[in-house]
Amino acid sequence: MKISKSKDQSRVIIEHVSPQLSGGKHPISRVVNEEVHVTADVFGDGHDVVQAALLYQNKNAKKWQEVRMQPTVNDSWEASFTVQKQGVYAYKVIGWVDHALNWQDGLQRKLEDGQYVYSELQDGAQYATAIKKSAKGVAKELMQQAEEAFIDETRYDEAVEIGKSEQLQTLFTVHPQRNTITESDTFSIYVDRPKARFSTWYEFFPRSASEKPNKHGTFKDCERLIPRVANMGFDVLYFPPIHPIGEVNRKGKNNATEAEKGDTGSPWGIGSHLGGHTAIHPELGDLSDFHSLIKTAEKHGIEIAMDFALQAAPDHPWVKSNPEWFKWKPDGTVQYAENPPKKYQDILPIHFESNKWKPLWDELLSTALYWVDQGIKIFRVDNPHTKPFLFWGWLIQEVKKKNPEVLFLSEAFTKPKVMQQLGKQGFTQSYTYFTWRNNKHELQEYMHELTQTDMKEYFRPNFWPNTPDINPWELQTKHESIYLFRHFLAATLSSNYGLYGPVYEFMDADAVPGKEEYLNSEKYEYKHWDWDKETKISHLITKINAIRKRERALQQTNNIVFLETENDNLIAYLKWDQARENYIVCVVNLDPYYRQQGQIHLGRDLLQTEEHQQLQLTDLITGNTYDWTSYKNFVELGPELPYHLFRVTW
Amino acid sequence: MKISKSKDQSRVIIEHVSPQLSGGKHPISRVVNEEVHVTADVFGDGHDVVQAALLYQNKNAKKWQEVRMQPTVNDSWEASFTVQKQGVYAYKVIGWVDHALNWQDGLQRKLEDGQYVYSELQDGAQYATAIKKSAKGVAKELMQQAEEAFIDETRYDEAVEIGKSEQLQTLFTVHPQRNTITESDTFSIYVDRPKARFSTWYEFFPRSASEKPNKHGTFKDCERLIPRVANMGFDVLYFPPIHPIGEVNRKGKNNATEAEKGDTGSPWGIGSHLGGHTAIHPELGDLSDFHSLIKTAEKHGIEIAMDFALQAAPDHPWVKSNPEWFKWKPDGTVQYAENPPKKYQDILPIHFESNKWKPLWDELLSTALYWVDQGIKIFRVDNPHTKPFLFWGWLIQEVKKKNPEVLFLSEAFTKPKVMQQLGKQGFTQSYTYFTWRNNKHELQEYMHELTQTDMKEYFRPNFWPNTPDINPWELQTKHESIYLFRHFLAATLSSNYGLYGPVYEFMDADAVPGKEEYLNSEKYEYKHWDWDKETKISHLITKINAIRKRERALQQTNNIVFLETENDNLIAYLKWDQARENYIVCVVNLDPYYRQQGQIHLGRDLLQTEEHQQLQLTDLITGNTYDWTSYKNFVELGPELPYHLFRVTW
Repeated sequence: MKISKSKDQSRVIIEHVSPQLSGGKHPISRVVNEEVHVTADVFGDGHDVVQAALLYQNKNAKKWQEVRMQPTVNDSWEASFTVQKQGVYAYKVIGWVDHALNWQDGLQRKLEDGQYVYSELQDGAQYATAIKKSAKGVAKELMQQAEEAFIDETRYDEAVEIGKSEQLQTLFTVHPQRNTITESDTFSIYVDRPKARFSTWYEFFPRSASEKPNKHGTFKDCERLIPRVANMGFDVLYFPPIHPIGEVNRKGKNNATEAEKGDTGSPWGIGSHLGGHTAIHPELGDLSDFHSLIKTAEKHGIEIAMDFALQAAPDHPWVKSNPEWFKWKPDGTVQYAENPPKKYQDILPIHFESNKWKPLWDELLSTALYWVDQGIKIFRVDNPHTKPFLFWGWLIQEVKKKNPEVLFLSEAFTKPKVMQQLGKQGFTQSYTYFTWRNNKHELQEYMHELTQTDMKEYFRPNFWPNTPDINPWELQTKHESIYLFRHFLAATLSSNYGLYGPVYEFMDADAVPGKEEYLNSEKYEYKHWDWDKETKISHLITKINAIRKRERALQQTNNIVFLETENDNLIAYLKWDQARENYIVCVVNLDPYYRQQGQIHLGRDLLQTEEHQQLQLTDLITGNTYDWTSYKNFVELGPELPYHLFRVTW
Repeated sequence: MKISKSKDQSRVIIEHVSPQLSGGKHPISRVVNEEVHVTADVFGDGHDVVQAALLYQNKNAKKWQEVRMQPTVNDSWEASFTVQKQGVYAYKVIGWVDHALNWQDGLQRKLEDGQYVYSELQDGAQYATAIKKSAKGVAKELMQQAEEAFIDETRYDEAVEIGKSEQLQTLFTVHPQRNTITESDTFSIYVDRPKARFSTWYEFFPRSASEKPNKHGTFKDCERLIPRVANMGFDVLYFPPIHPIGEVNRKGKNNATEAEKGDTGSPWGIGSHLGGHTAIHPELGDLSDFHSLIKTAEKHGIEIAMDFALQAAPDHPWVKSNPEWFKWKPDGTVQYAENPPKKYQDILPIHFESNKWKPLWDELLSTALYWVDQGIKIFRVDNPHTKPFLFWGWLIQEVKKKNPEVLFLSEAFTKPKVMQQLGKQGFTQSYTYFTWRNNKHELQEYMHELTQTDMKEYFRPNFWPNTPDINPWELQTKHESIYLFRHFLAATLSSNYGLYGPVYEFMDADAVPGKEEYLNSEKYEYKHWDWDKETKISHLITKINAIRKRERALQQTNNIVFLETENDNLIAYLKWDQARENYIVCVVNLDPYYRQQGQIHLGRDLLQTEEHQQLQLTDLITGNTYDWTSYKNFVELGPELPYHLFRVTW
């Protein structure tokens, strides 16, 4: 074993630095101004005083910032810092035997035991000498005094006073004397802009945006709808792919294998003789229309999210220009997408195992960067779990190098570990199982997994009650109360949520029999909507989105505790912001048919206030106020307005 | 980001390989012929068939051994192997998308769906071609047949039969076609000889071994006592330090600061003008006496364990030869050991922060190796937690390089994480908190920590009811039943245990008032014992040690489950060996005053037998047998024989 002095002589062990993912292989996620609370086990041999510090820096900074850690229990230490810039941060923990503090600690014990400590004081002079060099002003003078008094037996009493003083302890702490240091591994953080954590999505098909029936919608039509979306309180507007739709093997209405004349096909069948992933479907408009739309949206506080769907129609330009990016069978035909026995003849998967993978990766990156240049800062990535994880890790990192503000939403409805891995590879947000979590137990269990396990460090959920691909059984009932509370749950459990509209607010949920799919889905045809129509659902969406913008407790997901309600039909939860200045209690009646009563248990410890503190609860939807004087509080909710959204004050 | 083809194109993720310590920084521990059960998360993108394998090798082997892993649930995989040699092993997990198996899987689904698969068969010919090269005999012929039939539409039915055959699946599994591989980190194991896991220790002071009163015992006297120790069933005999005892600041009887004339001092105050850590205290004998003792012990199946106590009396030769290895104060005096306000004037700690640390480490290593050369294969290390962790990591590794059979017992009675760290740094076994765990809850909780957390991978407990340093409150009562069951618990809960005798079997437990210390301790004087005396305690120690040698379930610690007894005074546990051929149930009455009754719940699932299986329980101490026909079984135990030790058969 090679012995290098500094490292092998270190006497401190650092273990279990938390948070960290896979020993630091992946960064944890934060947004600007979010706190990073770090714990670690730090201990030394023997009885000497050990100290620890947390070091952190923005990747572009030259120096590490240092925060002293504090011991908690059983050799565990903690400290926090706040990340203030977008981009990559690093952090690590250091520990050392602090000889100066150790000397003072021993001195004090001996003094308490009545021992004569002149020999110890002499020994302590070295620390005064060391600190004198870097200290200034009063501190420097005190060190000068200590240096002299400690070695002068005639000044014993004075020396003892200095030796045991708090002042000296402070100086020892501010000017640590470190002979050897133990350093943990270095871990990293990716810091996003705040929208990564707090965003409100709306999705519609631009081709259904026309004012007139039987007319293909355009970007101009969409632009006209921007105020509607903004008024409802959404700040991200996501469109299915806007590229030319393949004409070969195009799907017909209701996913028919053969399209009829006039069928518009699926927007996810990307590419034709009119262009590929960097082109715009001509019926929607042109690039300048798209620019204009982005600009108008921006004026209304809305960002356009683009669908990044890496697959090709059989007539996509890539198939001819780069046949090596697709898989060809021995019979000379190209491999279309399949999940045997299912076949998707209108789509060719990209062959990532191609020998020409490097130019492929570069092309896909340049596609993303092209749209970033057009003003797109949010990508909703279609089926990322059917492309290699490492490709995503690379692409996202490359995009963010010059564009740290770009966000990626992972549309992976698949196995838990696969979805988690995409978060680790850099996806900013992810679709979730919320769509299928209905009863109280399921919801609480899932929220626990998202917010109380290490998923909270890298996996930001985005809750969608519906999507064009999923028309859940519960919503197929077209029961208004369900639409109200499913939206409410999405919007208050998770700070990121989205709706596929206007089918949601219009309860337009006819289904393919026996399937969680929309009948006459917009995926295969355009529709005509009465965009001016208002419903109770749209009214409450608007109201709740407005509340989300005011209440900081709803702008984050992880600070949540579920409250006992004494009734399985009532789910209740408390949320709070990082500063603990805003407390929200939500109560939801999950029974769409009957009124439900319960007792909400709200321990005052959760509010960090006194045991018998009287609380005022203001329902931000109705404006009603309630005094909660005890630990248990009666609540009754009916299907017509199945929730309370309380701000808690005292 | 640098892109190298093989790594970046891999499509499989491997995470959470278990067991592992701190990401592989420390090896896990096993003994020869022990199993290593490995689990890992292995998954790929998309829907393709993924396969995984566990690779392992002895450090001196040239090739990795491969065991195919099997999926369990939720993308977790498992496999096991057995370590067969002493020394270092490595293991890692690999995963890959298996295109051949994936092809067959897709083929089968399409056939079940009634699809015509000639195109697919053609595609499959490539796998037959690839495997044909390495296959032999019948397999080679089958591949030849497949290669031809798959591309011949006239042989379609034959090709389909081959394509979906189990034979083909087996060949695909035996000859995996791996384009790219993902490899986990590599982890390591230190494999000890079996005694690391199963050892029975006895400790006495050699200077108390004389047949005659008022006479300093010698190695010759110890040699005479070997048959006694062997007959009692012990296989490790541990002596406190046998080196010359310091004469400067020597401690007197009962730890008096000043020794009186004739006081023999503490054996842990090592070193005088007569020599240091490689010398022998002349009153005990000389090196040839020691060799003779080791030889006699060996004949009786006993190994002598040496105390490795790295500290020096003020007159130790090192203090003069290497003053830089000690700490000198500004007043010119040397720093003796202290834990303020306590002082240990007869002992100088070694100054590991010395600038001359490298020669120091070398000297300490050569001391250990000197005794290895004299025939010592077990060290009981005194207070390892007051020396740097990394020093131990280095020393143990260096000793084991040429002497993999050497074992180290850590005498660290200190904070949990410090004790754990010593295990991670390479100590074979450790003293534990068992000494202070008395009631049922404490015992069960502590056993859970040792055997059901990752401590089981690196921390081998050695249970001692008493030591020369600890005369526990419970044993100070001199209550025979307590001595019986404390020994029984140590000997059956842990496969490694030890006793400090003959004070244990003689219940010679006078204490310093108010302290857990022995009065007139042998640490500061030699004693005279009637070594021929037998007691009920020694009789049962002998009996239980003999049972331990026969019952493999008691030769390991981790396979243990506590059984419900319906009585907090009765503790019961089931243990079993790795092969699940030997099952032992222990029941102990922890009440030394009253008879206690309970119902022992023994689920047949724990025995992997049928729900209503009738069991025969043989008490290996009394020879009585019992039929247990139901899930609950009545047991009654009194203080006079407070335990059952059942072998379970059916």
